Amino acid sequence: MSKAVFYHAGCPVCIEAEQQVANSIHPAKYDVEIVHLGEAGDRLGEAESAGVKSVPALVLDGTVFHINHGADLSALKS
Amino acid sequence: MSKAVFYHAGCPVCIEAEQQVANSIHPAKYDVEIVHLGEAGDRLGEAESAGVKSVPALVLDGTVFHINHGADLSALKS
Repeated sequence: MSKAVFYHAGCPVCIEAEQQVANSIHPAKYDVEIVHLGEAGDRLGEAESAGVKSVPALVLDGTVFHINHGADLSALKS
Repeated sequence: MSKAVFYHAGCPVCIEAEQQVANSIHPAKYDVEIVHLGEAGDRLGEAESAGVKSVPALVLDGTVFHINHGADLSALKS
């Protein structure tokens, strides 16, 4: 099973992408995890290490795909 | 069956996204079509009407998701 992680931050652009893109992923191929970086701030380091620059972003087997543009990751750091 | 159209133009960013994103889509939910706008120039108008600004882009049920950035659509017009 491959791993898909959808990172978002609750912004409108993120929610739309989550509902459509995350839900379009083949569940037999990918174990899909949805991470809200605004709530799970402890996952920011992991997202950065994976190469995530902005949200929403989809990481498929370690490869980052930035989908549209909701917010820069730097805006989520407090 | 919902419709998913993946527009690309053969660029390296496009090919990577095609192989991973287009192939991750649930085939029971979406009828996936892959359109190479460099070869199928007659589909440029359709892509523009859907709201595609750059490739690669994934259109899910009419909603456009720009994935990373390979080339602006304007660069494909000759």
